[in-house]
Amino acid sequence: MKNKGQQVWKKAKKIIPGGNMILSKRPEMFLPLKWPTYFKQAKGCNVWSLDDQKLTDMSLMGIGTNILGYCNDEVDKAVIECVKKGNMTTLNCNEEVELAEKLIEINSPWGEMVRFARSGGEANAIAIRIARAASGKDNIAVCGYHGWHDWYLSANLKNKNQLDDHLLSGLDVDGVPEALKDTVVPFEYNNFEQLEEIIATKNIGALKMEVVRNIEPNNNFLEKVRKITKKNNIILIFDECTSGFRETFGGISKKYQIQPDMTMFGKALGNGYAITAIIGKKDIMQYAQSSFISSTFWSERIGPTAALKTLEIMEKTESWKIITKKGKHIKNCWIELAKKNNINLDVWGIDALPGFTIKSEYSLEYKTFISQELLKENILASNSIYVSTAHSDDLIDLYIEKLGNIFSKIKECEDGADIQKLLEGPVCQVGFKRIN
Amino acid sequence: MKNKGQQVWKKAKKIIPGGNMILSKRPEMFLPLKWPTYFKQAKGCNVWSLDDQKLTDMSLMGIGTNILGYCNDEVDKAVIECVKKGNMTTLNCNEEVELAEKLIEINSPWGEMVRFARSGGEANAIAIRIARAASGKDNIAVCGYHGWHDWYLSANLKNKNQLDDHLLSGLDVDGVPEALKDTVVPFEYNNFEQLEEIIATKNIGALKMEVVRNIEPNNNFLEKVRKITKKNNIILIFDECTSGFRETFGGISKKYQIQPDMTMFGKALGNGYAITAIIGKKDIMQYAQSSFISSTFWSERIGPTAALKTLEIMEKTESWKIITKKGKHIKNCWIELAKKNNINLDVWGIDALPGFTIKSEYSLEYKTFISQELLKENILASNSIYVSTAHSDDLIDLYIEKLGNIFSKIKECEDGADIQKLLEGPVCQVGFKRIN
Repeated sequence: MKNKGQQVWKKAKKIIPGGNMILSKRPEMFLPLKWPTYFKQAKGCNVWSLDDQKLTDMSLMGIGTNILGYCNDEVDKAVIECVKKGNMTTLNCNEEVELAEKLIEINSPWGEMVRFARSGGEANAIAIRIARAASGKDNIAVCGYHGWHDWYLSANLKNKNQLDDHLLSGLDVDGVPEALKDTVVPFEYNNFEQLEEIIATKNIGALKMEVVRNIEPNNNFLEKVRKITKKNNIILIFDECTSGFRETFGGISKKYQIQPDMTMFGKALGNGYAITAIIGKKDIMQYAQSSFISSTFWSERIGPTAALKTLEIMEKTESWKIITKKGKHIKNCWIELAKKNNINLDVWGIDALPGFTIKSEYSLEYKTFISQELLKENILASNSIYVSTAHSDDLIDLYIEKLGNIFSKIKECEDGADIQKLLEGPVCQVGFKRIN
Repeated sequence: MKNKGQQVWKKAKKIIPGGNMILSKRPEMFLPLKWPTYFKQAKGCNVWSLDDQKLTDMSLMGIGTNILGYCNDEVDKAVIECVKKGNMTTLNCNEEVELAEKLIEINSPWGEMVRFARSGGEANAIAIRIARAASGKDNIAVCGYHGWHDWYLSANLKNKNQLDDHLLSGLDVDGVPEALKDTVVPFEYNNFEQLEEIIATKNIGALKMEVVRNIEPNNNFLEKVRKITKKNNIILIFDECTSGFRETFGGISKKYQIQPDMTMFGKALGNGYAITAIIGKKDIMQYAQSSFISSTFWSERIGPTAALKTLEIMEKTESWKIITKKGKHIKNCWIELAKKNNINLDVWGIDALPGFTIKSEYSLEYKTFISQELLKENILASNSIYVSTAHSDDLIDLYIEKLGNIFSKIKECEDGADIQKLLEGPVCQVGFKRIN
């Protein structure tokens, strides 16, 4: 079988170090040598490969960028209008002011001022700059994943594995200045004692965390974090680039009724167009005025235009409720399939971004096998799904049906059959690794 | 007179710290209280304000993003096609591979591998990360302007004015970690002795500079920089975000026949769409594989799509020759006008990005006055022009004619008339300042 995508990928790896721009889109993370890798076209939750194979995306949906599905008509119409009228000029676009107003409304009462960037890493770095300026302290306590910038990766200078439990393992940090060692201290989610110790000893100015990713807060963890940061004049920053708009109209912090001092949104904010936001209290955000934070392309118009329309549609359709319901259903189906096949399955993640792990020494082999078999059924899948409103019940049923067949084969392997014999290529990778 | 733009700006400053996303688009930098500030529509070198005033942009043309004019039909057609077919999916876009190939061809023989980002500051930070990883040294020698990131601004930690002569004065650096002090050492353009001293004493791993901005290299400065960096195993990085594609099809380094080890392009690369590139030698670029550099929105498709089409048109029309010729003509007209009016004028900048300064204690007042008076003639102008192929000879003639009238008034002021009486509002600002 031809696979144009793999041919392009071979070439790409020779001229782009690492092959592409984001680790999570490397074919090695799914199905090495077989993953279609490149797309030609997309619509709803369908993607067409370079070989014109029409695929249903039951995987990462643009790594979480497209809650309203690919090529949402209304969002794209607004973007095309913007292209026709001009994306960049010497003057500013007033859409950024409108979007700031909307985000302030959504994040009332604590959200009072806003800045925009065009990538999540940038938004995270801007928030850190402002928080360091406002607190007058350089040290940060951190939990969760926050991008590629020096400030964050410096946590791994001491020990390459310090960030391993915060989403991506093995993050190499060559080229991050040694001087930054000990400026960022990671803490474990739900480990309040550890956090207390860090705050007591490390002169922390700001605390940045994901509100929730794969496990739920327990023992009032978030309340305690809010309390101890307030008490110690530590700026509390919630990174909602991933969690935002998936369970509420805004941050998932709303669900837990905890108000941060700053928050970042990204990914889903523009339904597939680059836009990220930093929002915070006025007395903190104003410190952006005592630190130079400026970039030409942050002033382009597509980003805020797409975000305004995306927010309008999300609010109108209450999309977060739709995807949460669908995701909960998917989780239940997984659990049922596992039970039926007597497979030891761990199901995790917020409902709108569910994931599973088969608890076995062959976990990665099974993950690869699932991608391999579902690709034959024209489904892009791995072990987690960024649910979109375009995932119809029929498509979900079909996916679950096909997955059921695969689970029964996995059951056979757990009972003694050889998974290696079923794999038609190498096993997928985990975390950050050099590729050739 | 109504001025909707100023009304929006008033609101913007209350909810966006600093009012917008880029210093160079603040109305305070041109004509405080009067500058139209926001646009509705653009085409060629025309911009329509929120009051529907049709303006000819004889100023920054999107801060240098639009060499082919605003809303170039061919580029926009490609972008709209991309929007219709999908901007982001779980799979990658092969346009990034094509663009990498094209940039390698343009930067032959030294350019062998490429990474992309979506803003110039990011591209600069990625290049520094890779160079630090490759050299195994953290210290950087730097000349020129390279964005808002920690690595660059840290030069001002020792002394707020260290970067004053590198484009923007007064860059405040609150929130940049103190630990980075002394990691970046600025050197003066054309001062080779200073650079020698820095290299001899500072354990420099990489040298980043703008090849040329407002003054020409003298005394074989660039050759000497290339020689001393090679001799000392220092990675030479040319930041061509501003200079790229304005005087050659690629970096302005081609003109001087000096080959760097790495280069960044941005601004004009996508003719108004966000795309920036880092290109370099393979043995250096591969260090991106030992450092985590990854971001969701770097994988969107509009950026490389716009860049591919922009490069195609630039190559076909030899746009760099057109804008260089037009810019040279503008420079000559300025010099003539100054001579005629006996004004002491300093003309600077590469031909395609010419600028002037009236040498007088009222220099800033005159700059403001020029913006004020030309705005009345429906021309957006300051004291420098990013020339585009859309700047027709007729429009340039008209601009020069109107500017001539203003120069004669300035001459009267130099002879004793009061410029303050001619100004209808406050004087423009220079560099980075807090605004209210």
